[in-house]
Amino acid sequence: LVAVYNAHVILLTGFEPFDGDAYNPSMRIAQALEGTRHGRSRVKSAILPVDGVRAPRHLEELLTPEVRAVVMLGLARGRTQVALERVALNWAEYRIPDNAGHVRRGERLYPGAPDAHLSSLPLETIRIAWREAGLPGYVSDSAGLYLCNQVFYTVRQSRPTLPAGFIHLPSDEILALAKPEAFVPLAFQQRSIEVALSALAKWLEMTALTVD
Amino acid sequence: LVAVYNAHVILLTGFEPFDGDAYNPSMRIAQALEGTRHGRSRVKSAILPVDGVRAPRHLEELLTPEVRAVVMLGLARGRTQVALERVALNWAEYRIPDNAGHVRRGERLYPGAPDAHLSSLPLETIRIAWREAGLPGYVSDSAGLYLCNQVFYTVRQSRPTLPAGFIHLPSDEILALAKPEAFVPLAFQQRSIEVALSALAKWLEMTALTVD
Amino acid sequence: LVAVYNAHVILLTGFEPFDGDAYNPSMRIAQALEGTRHGRSRVKSAILPVDGVRAPRHLEELLTPEVRAVVMLGLARGRTQVALERVALNWAEYRIPDNAGHVRRGERLYPGAPDAHLSSLPLETIRIAWREAGLPGYVSDSAGLYLCNQVFYTVRQSRPTLPAGFIHLPSDEILALAKPEAFVPLAFQQRSIEVALSALAKWLEMTALTVD
Amino acid sequence: LVAVYNAHVILLTGFEPFDGDAYNPSMRIAQALEGTRHGRSRVKSAILPVDGVRAPRHLEELLTPEVRAVVMLGLARGRTQVALERVALNWAEYRIPDNAGHVRRGERLYPGAPDAHLSSLPLETIRIAWREAGLPGYVSDSAGLYLCNQVFYTVRQSRPTLPAGFIHLPSDEILALAKPEAFVPLAFQQRSIEVALSALAKWLEMTALTVD
Repeated sequence: LVAVYNAHVILLTGFEPFDGDAYNPSMRIAQALEGTRHGRSRVKSAILPVDGVRAPRHLEELLTPEVRAVVMLGLARGRTQVALERVALNWAEYRIPDNAGHVRRGERLYPGAPDAHLSSLPLETIRIAWREAGLPGYVSDSAGLYLCNQVFYTVRQSRPTLPAGFIHLPSDEILALAKPEAFVPLAFQQRSIEVALSALAKWLEMTALTVD
Repeated sequence: LVAVYNAHVILLTGFEPFDGDAYNPSMRIAQALEGTRHGRSRVKSAILPVDGVRAPRHLEELLTPEVRAVVMLGLARGRTQVALERVALNWAEYRIPDNAGHVRRGERLYPGAPDAHLSSLPLETIRIAWREAGLPGYVSDSAGLYLCNQVFYTVRQSRPTLPAGFIHLPSDEILALAKPEAFVPLAFQQRSIEVALSALAKWLEMTALTVD
Repeated sequence: LVAVYNAHVILLTGFEPFDGDAYNPSMRIAQALEGTRHGRSRVKSAILPVDGVRAPRHLEELLTPEVRAVVMLGLARGRTQVALERVALNWAEYRIPDNAGHVRRGERLYPGAPDAHLSSLPLETIRIAWREAGLPGYVSDSAGLYLCNQVFYTVRQSRPTLPAGFIHLPSDEILALAKPEAFVPLAFQQRSIEVALSALAKWLEMTALTVD
Repeated sequence: LVAVYNAHVILLTGFEPFDGDAYNPSMRIAQALEGTRHGRSRVKSAILPVDGVRAPRHLEELLTPEVRAVVMLGLARGRTQVALERVALNWAEYRIPDNAGHVRRGERLYPGAPDAHLSSLPLETIRIAWREAGLPGYVSDSAGLYLCNQVFYTVRQSRPTLPAGFIHLPSDEILALAKPEAFVPLAFQQRSIEVALSALAKWLEMTALTVD
């Protein structure tokens, strides 16, 4: 008689560097947390290309049946704290070319699909966990119109019932060395993501108990 | 033989003052433009109460069959320019009580309704009209979670095919007298709204021609 | 018997465009107010080159005996309102080259001279005049380390007893057309400068009466 | 035969809480670094009252002959990084009452004294040390007009030849928990101050060698 322990898999994505940067904290944190366990969940990390065509395709491949939740990370220079995104819009518009050289002049990501999807992560649960851990963070009402919003929308549209959401990261000490912009040290950001993952893992377990 | 001239009615709403202010530029501009004509359209102005229960009810009454488009105005202190809102969220969350004393701790406006509605105003047409008139303005990706977003969502949800949208106004010279915040003089803001209404009126005529 | 009317001359300077801009609102306003009269004072306008070597030389030539006060104008993109500068520092440091290609890596403007000079304009008088005229504006505690600060320091150092000061202007509607930055329309800015000049003129007359 | 080791004493000051806060990171860091050694220098910490009358008196008592340099710390909510202040102004103006209830409507700190004093700390040396240690930080051109500027001016005026300056600290994770403002974690801030003290200590030794 063998007890099979089925860990929930949380897919954690970061982005590769873009816009001329040699570095992206979202990539660093996703890599650092690969394989970590939070309660009954295990983190599976992946790095997405900053490419409006390849990123969603790559994401679709990552959304295997074992994935029970998705946390996507991305960089938002100028932000002051880590930010849970509330909503993904069915819209793309950007002048900074992605790494494949594409720009978007304003168009729907998925014609005919809903205008937007709210995050299906437990935002309040994570916000409270951050607060209790003494980690500043907030819920943002706009994920922008760039790749971050696109991959967020893609997952919400493709797997409507899957808990999935996006967290924007501010600059870290490496990026902020060049100019007097707001930053949060990478190690501190990573702790915020770990606390979010733990809160999510606990919530997944509670939800599973309720559902099963 | 009688030529019946059927002017399109554009409903233009402002809000009464709130949060202790004695004054709201959105009210002032809506009142100033009452009855003005732009091409074949005529402006019908109304002032909405800053009350999460009464405002949507009042709006519903204003949405008579003659109304061909809706432009809603509201104040957003701290903004630097007039801003066309891109999206209305099905969410309310605010700690600043409305004028009836209500706060919202985070809840759907309309349970079961879509997560969000994109503006049905011709955003690019208005943006270009502003630019050609030398009037700075931009498209914003978040209308907040207060009354402004609520009335915007209400109209988009209630009349899905009606061209309707929201424009946020920055502080004006009266509000900015007390502190060094960004402002745009009221007369200049009003001009931006007139140009938006003219562009909208022209677009309504073109659309009518195409449709009829 | 001839009554000689000796108008006070107020020297009003603006700067030519710099940093690739085709346009500088400080130049436009200085030109527009050339020859205007405010009480017993007459405005004499001049445009300064954005050149750390030529600008102070040119200023010295402009400081003829008839000049009873100096108001210098300059552009500060990103500011939200017109700003009376409180202090000029004996320091230059800038990486954006002036129009002659000079940069400054951090050095005293005048070795051996005082570290700073406070403005000798009647700041409170002008601030109150703005308020009474309904024109937002504030007193700033830093004029930067670029040409604006340099010419301000130069006049205060060269003519210590002369009422002289600097007013920074925000972007106007022309500059702000390209991005969603704070701006104040040029005509509104010009009115703020006119009110400042009138308040200064009145103060000069009062001071002259007291002194004579 | 006894070798007497005369450590340089660096006076490090912080402020007590003010404006209703229960906490001030400048106090915490000053206390944490009390007695630490940096090269041949030893830190002597002191907490200043937020009281425009008592603070300068207390400072004067602290300026004993053994003190070879002074680093003053203070909180500046809203700043994004630690900031070396370039200049102290001979001016006080604040509406937020100090802890003794005083406000200042705009007046000289020391009538007849110079308008301002530049910092006598080696700003570039500290800035480079921060950069080499990977710690974001910048040189600020305004220390405000509150108590921070006052104590900075007081020391520079009272001991003109003593290396002395002010470093403003941003909010930390405790203060930023309540709102989405910029912050730098306290431990990270403390490291920035330690690196500044080490750079200063090394500079004091070099200067002593040169002078002796």
